[in-house]
Amino acid sequence: MWQRGVGAHREPIEHLLSEHLQSTYHYTIGPYSEPVLHIKPGDRVFVETRDAFDGAIKNETDKPSELLRMPFLNPQNGPIMVEGAEKGDVLAVYIEKMSPRGDDPHGICAMIPNFGALTGTDYTAILNEPLPEKVRRIKIDEQNVYWSKRNTLPYRPHIGTLSVSPEIDSINSLTPDNHGGNMDVPDMGPGSITYLPIRSPGARLFIGDAHACQGDGEVCGTAVEFASTTTIKVDLIKGWALDWPRLENRHAIMSIGCARPLEDAARIAYRDLVFWMVNEYGFDKWDAYMLLSQCGKMRLGNFVDPKYTMGAMISKDYLRPAPV
Amino acid sequence: MWQRGVGAHREPIEHLLSEHLQSTYHYTIGPYSEPVLHIKPGDRVFVETRDAFDGAIKNETDKPSELLRMPFLNPQNGPIMVEGAEKGDVLAVYIEKMSPRGDDPHGICAMIPNFGALTGTDYTAILNEPLPEKVRRIKIDEQNVYWSKRNTLPYRPHIGTLSVSPEIDSINSLTPDNHGGNMDVPDMGPGSITYLPIRSPGARLFIGDAHACQGDGEVCGTAVEFASTTTIKVDLIKGWALDWPRLENRHAIMSIGCARPLEDAARIAYRDLVFWMVNEYGFDKWDAYMLLSQCGKMRLGNFVDPKYTMGAMISKDYLRPAPV
Amino acid sequence: MWQRGVGAHREPIEHLLSEHLQSTYHYTIGPYSEPVLHIKPGDRVFVETRDAFDGAIKNETDKPSELLRMPFLNPQNGPIMVEGAEKGDVLAVYIEKMSPRGDDPHGICAMIPNFGALTGTDYTAILNEPLPEKVRRIKIDEQNVYWSKRNTLPYRPHIGTLSVSPEIDSINSLTPDNHGGNMDVPDMGPGSITYLPIRSPGARLFIGDAHACQGDGEVCGTAVEFASTTTIKVDLIKGWALDWPRLENRHAIMSIGCARPLEDAARIAYRDLVFWMVNEYGFDKWDAYMLLSQCGKMRLGNFVDPKYTMGAMISKDYLRPAPV
Amino acid sequence: MWQRGVGAHREPIEHLLSEHLQSTYHYTIGPYSEPVLHIKPGDRVFVETRDAFDGAIKNETDKPSELLRMPFLNPQNGPIMVEGAEKGDVLAVYIEKMSPRGDDPHGICAMIPNFGALTGTDYTAILNEPLPEKVRRIKIDEQNVYWSKRNTLPYRPHIGTLSVSPEIDSINSLTPDNHGGNMDVPDMGPGSITYLPIRSPGARLFIGDAHACQGDGEVCGTAVEFASTTTIKVDLIKGWALDWPRLENRHAIMSIGCARPLEDAARIAYRDLVFWMVNEYGFDKWDAYMLLSQCGKMRLGNFVDPKYTMGAMISKDYLRPAPV
Repeated sequence: MWQRGVGAHREPIEHLLSEHLQSTYHYTIGPYSEPVLHIKPGDRVFVETRDAFDGAIKNETDKPSELLRMPFLNPQNGPIMVEGAEKGDVLAVYIEKMSPRGDDPHGICAMIPNFGALTGTDYTAILNEPLPEKVRRIKIDEQNVYWSKRNTLPYRPHIGTLSVSPEIDSINSLTPDNHGGNMDVPDMGPGSITYLPIRSPGARLFIGDAHACQGDGEVCGTAVEFASTTTIKVDLIKGWALDWPRLENRHAIMSIGCARPLEDAARIAYRDLVFWMVNEYGFDKWDAYMLLSQCGKMRLGNFVDPKYTMGAMISKDYLRPAPV
Repeated sequence: MWQRGVGAHREPIEHLLSEHLQSTYHYTIGPYSEPVLHIKPGDRVFVETRDAFDGAIKNETDKPSELLRMPFLNPQNGPIMVEGAEKGDVLAVYIEKMSPRGDDPHGICAMIPNFGALTGTDYTAILNEPLPEKVRRIKIDEQNVYWSKRNTLPYRPHIGTLSVSPEIDSINSLTPDNHGGNMDVPDMGPGSITYLPIRSPGARLFIGDAHACQGDGEVCGTAVEFASTTTIKVDLIKGWALDWPRLENRHAIMSIGCARPLEDAARIAYRDLVFWMVNEYGFDKWDAYMLLSQCGKMRLGNFVDPKYTMGAMISKDYLRPAPV
Repeated sequence: MWQRGVGAHREPIEHLLSEHLQSTYHYTIGPYSEPVLHIKPGDRVFVETRDAFDGAIKNETDKPSELLRMPFLNPQNGPIMVEGAEKGDVLAVYIEKMSPRGDDPHGICAMIPNFGALTGTDYTAILNEPLPEKVRRIKIDEQNVYWSKRNTLPYRPHIGTLSVSPEIDSINSLTPDNHGGNMDVPDMGPGSITYLPIRSPGARLFIGDAHACQGDGEVCGTAVEFASTTTIKVDLIKGWALDWPRLENRHAIMSIGCARPLEDAARIAYRDLVFWMVNEYGFDKWDAYMLLSQCGKMRLGNFVDPKYTMGAMISKDYLRPAPV
Repeated sequence: MWQRGVGAHREPIEHLLSEHLQSTYHYTIGPYSEPVLHIKPGDRVFVETRDAFDGAIKNETDKPSELLRMPFLNPQNGPIMVEGAEKGDVLAVYIEKMSPRGDDPHGICAMIPNFGALTGTDYTAILNEPLPEKVRRIKIDEQNVYWSKRNTLPYRPHIGTLSVSPEIDSINSLTPDNHGGNMDVPDMGPGSITYLPIRSPGARLFIGDAHACQGDGEVCGTAVEFASTTTIKVDLIKGWALDWPRLENRHAIMSIGCARPLEDAARIAYRDLVFWMVNEYGFDKWDAYMLLSQCGKMRLGNFVDPKYTMGAMISKDYLRPAPV
C-alpha cells in the first residue's frame, strides 16, 4: 500500500514540530484550528508530544481530580497540512521512532475518579463511591519501563491518538471514531503505518498521547503516559476512499473500528477487513468471512474511552496469492 | 495450581468414553442427565467427541437450515462424575492431545442463516434478508488445515465447549456462562489446563465441540468443526471457590468472562484476573489493576454465541516474586 | 386472539394452587420438575404466590446479604400441566385478579448488594465498593401502596415472572428469555392476557413474583414484592407458533423481547410487533415498520435482571381495518 | 424551576428567525459558527425550521440514497446568543407552539439504507443487503397526521434537535449527547420546558428537526419530518450547573441521557433524576432510588441515532412535600 504514496520515492524534507513551534496544543480535532506546519507527501516530522495529562501530574502524591480539568485533556500537536490532500484520499503515517524527552525520562499512570473499565463512569452511571485516586511515576528508557521492584516491562511505545480532521465536526481528543482519534491501539508504534481517511483539504494531521507501553484495553484508563519525540514519515495515497482507519506492519494488516458497545467496534473492524481482503487481495467475500473465522486476530485497543476500539487482523502469510 | 490437585501424584487410570459408551449425546448442561462415566481425580479419559453439527452436514451442497434443528446442536459427551467433587471445589481439566477421528479426517465450516457476528440474529433482530448459506468441507491432519488452494492453516485444535453442571439450571450447549459452556476460546487446546467452578456433587463434566483451528471471535459463527478423540486428564482441587472459569498454560494465566455486551465479558475477565493476582500471587489490588493496564492481554473467544467470551491474560513472567 | 382459545367457551373448572399443594417452590423453570396441577384449557386457578425473597426478609433491619442465598431466589408456583398443549401452540394466561395474602398485607423492597441498575453487578463487574443494603417494609391494600409519609402510590399489581418450560433447558427464575421468565413488565396485571410460546408437552406453566407496583425498569432491582393470591384463567391456542411472548389488554397489543444489551431487547420487541401486525392485522411489512416509527410505544420492563426486557406496543385504535 | 429565570417577569421581545435571516443552516453544533440572532433572557423567537432532509425529499419516488449527502443532514437554526449566559448556567427553552409551514403542509418519512433500528448500520456493521428505500409523503394539519387511508394519527409535534454549544467540540446535528442535540424525545413539544447545560458564552442555542409525531424509539429512523414555525420562549437560569439536559411539563419532570448501549442512556437518566430529586425536592438519595423503582417512567426517545436517548420521569404528584 505504502508504495502507492505520492511521496514514496521523494527525498524527504525534515521538519521539527517542537513544543515551541506548536505553542498551543489542541484538545479537539477538527477543521477550525490554525495549521502549525505545511509539509509535502513523503516528508519526515519530528514531533514533540506532551503527555496526556499535559504535564500536570508530576508526583505520586498529586491528585488527578484537582489537577485535571475536562475537556482539556490529551493535548495534540497539529494540525499539520499535507500538500495535495483532499477528501477521498488516504493519509499514510509511518511511525519511525519514539523516544522519551527530557533529562529524567519517565511516564505517569493514574487512576482517575470515574474513569477506567472497572468502575462506574459518566456514561455507565452508578451510585457507588468512586475508586481511590492513584498516581504512579515510572522511570523509563528506550529498553524498559521500570514499573516496580517486582516488574520491569519492555519499552513498547506507541501513539495513542492519531487523527485527520472530520469534515465539519470537531471532536475532543479523548474520543476515537472513524477519523482516528484516541484509539489507543498498542500496534500503532514504530514500524507501523496507519492509514487515515482524509475528509478535509490538507488532511489536517493531529498527533499526541505517547505511551511507553500499554496492555490490551488500557483497563485502568491510562497507560504509561510520557512526553515523546515521535518521528513520523507522512505520505498521501490519492483516490483511496476508506470508511475507517487501517494499519499495517511487517506481519499483518489491521482494520480498526471504534464504537460502543464493544461488539460493534469488533463488527466494524472485521467487516472492513473483509472488504479490504476483497478489494485489495482478490478474495471472494464469503471466503474472506469464513477464513477470518479460522485465522483472524482481534486486538482490544481500549474499552475506557468514550468509544471503544478494536483492531481486526490477518497475517500477511495468508494474503499471498494462490500458487499457480 | 495444578500441583494442588488431589490426584496430581496418582497413577492415572485410563478410560475410553467412546461414541458407543456415550450413546446419547447431550444438548443441555445440567444436573438432570444420567452419568456415563465415574472417574477418580487424576484419571485420564479419551473422549470421542462429535462435531458441532452432530455429523449432519456432510457435503458442500448441504443446506444447514434443512439439516440443523435447534436446540439440538453442539452435542456434548458426559456427564463424567468425579469422585469427591463438591460445590466450592474446582475441576482442573488438562487437555493432553486432540486428534481427528475417522479414515477421512476433515472439518466443516458453515454460514448458518441468522447466525454469526456480521449478520442479524435472533437477538440482534433486523428485517434484512439473511446471508446466503455456505458449507466448506476441509481436509485436516495433525499438522495442517487445508482450507483452500491458496491457504493452508496450521492445525491448532482446541475444545470449544467445556463445562461443569450449574447447581440447578440446565443450560443449552450453545451458551457459555460462569459454568463454562460454549466459550470457544482458542487457547483451550493441548497444553492448557482449564479450571471450572464446581457447583454440584461429582462436578458433572461435559465436553465437546472440537475445533481444528479458530480465529479470534469465530466471526462467521463456526470454526473448522471436527469429530475428535480428545485426551484429558481431570483433577480436583478442594476448597478453591471460583466465580468464573480460569485457564493456565506454560506462558500465561487467563480469567474468562462470558456476557453481553462484549465489554461486560471483558470486565468480568479483567476483574477476576485482578482477584487472582491478589489472592494467589501477592499483588496489591490497585497495583494489579494498574499493571494490567500496561501488560494485560485480551483474547476475544467468541462474539457469536448467546453470550460472548473474552479471556484476560497476564504473562507468567510478571507473576514471579520480587527479587529480595 | 383470546377468542381462538380451545377453552374460550367452556365453563371453567376452578383450582386452588395453595402454598400447601405447591409444597416445593421452584427456582428454575424447565422440563425436569414434578407437575403440581393438571388443568383443562379455559380453567381458572387461584395461585398462592410467595414473595421474591421467599419470605426471608421480614424487617427493615434485615440484611439481604445474610438472608438471601443464590440461586434460591424468586420462588415459582407450578408446573401446571395444560391438557392438549404441545410444542407449536400458545398458552394464553389471563390475569383476573391479584390480592395480597395474610392479615398484615405488606410488600418488601430491598437494595441488594451488587444488584440493580445504578451499581456494578456480577456481569457489569467493577472494583467499587457495593451500595449500602436497605430494606423497606411497606403496608399495602387493594387501593394503595403506603410507601412513606410523603408518598402513597396506587396499587397496580402485576406478575413479574410468568413462564412455560423451555424445550430442554431449565432456566433460573431470575432470568427472562423467549420462554417468558422474570420479565417484570408492569402491564402484566389484571386485565392482561399473556401469550407464551409452548415448547414442551403440557406447556408446564410457572408463575410467581407478584409486585404491588413497579416503575419502568425496576431501577433499584426490586419492586414492592408481596405474597399474593393471583387468579388466572388459562387457555390454549393451537397452531400459533410464536418466537417470543406477547401481551394484550383492552387498549393495546405488545410484543416482548428479552436480551442484553437493552437495544437488542427493543429490536426483538419491535420486530416481533411488525410480524404480528403483518400476520394478524393485514399490514404491509414496511408500512408497519414506518407506522410504528410514528405511533409505537415502548415499555422498559426491567434493566436489572440477567436479561433486560422491553415491550413494544401499538394501540388497538390503529389496528382497525381501513374503512371501505 | 422556570420561575427562577432571569427573564421570567420581563415583557418578552419578539424575534423572527426566518429562513431568510438564517440563510446558512448548520449541520454541526459548536462554538465556531456565526451567531444569527442576539436575544435577552425571556424573549420569544419564531423559528422557521427546515425538515431533517433539508427539503431534498419531495416525492414518494425519490431515492434518499441519491438525494441525501452525509454529513449534511438535519439542518439547524442558530446559533442564537443569549445575553448574560455563561458556563455553569442553564438555558431554559419553553416551546409554545409548533405549526407546519407552507401552502401544502406535509411531512416526510423515509427508510434510508443502513439507517434505523431493525437493520444493520455503519456502527452495527453487517454483511446483509440493505433494506429497500421507501419514502412516505404525508399530509398534516394542526389536528392530524394523515398517514394512510387506514390510519390517521393525532398531530403531536415536537422538536427533535435542541442544543447549546459544547465548550470546544462541534458535534454533528445527528448525534445527541450531554449538550442536547438530536435527542428525538416526543415529550419535547408545546408545553414543555427543556433545560440545557450552558458551556460557552452566550449559550449558542441551536434548534431544528420538527416532527409532526413520533413513536417511542423512532424505530425506522425517521419521524414525520416537517418544516415548521416553532415558537419558543428562552430564559436563563444563573448558577445551575447540570450534567445532562432535563425537561419539565405540567405533569412530570424528566432527566435525559444519551449513550450506547441503551442501558447506559437509561442509567444516566435515572441517576440524574435521583440527583434532581435530592437537590431540588429534598429526597434522601436511597429513598429516591427505591421510590423510582416503584413509580419511575422511562421514555425511549431514539435508538437509531449515533447515541440513543432515554428520558427518566417522575410524576409531579410524587414531588409534593410531605404533609405536616
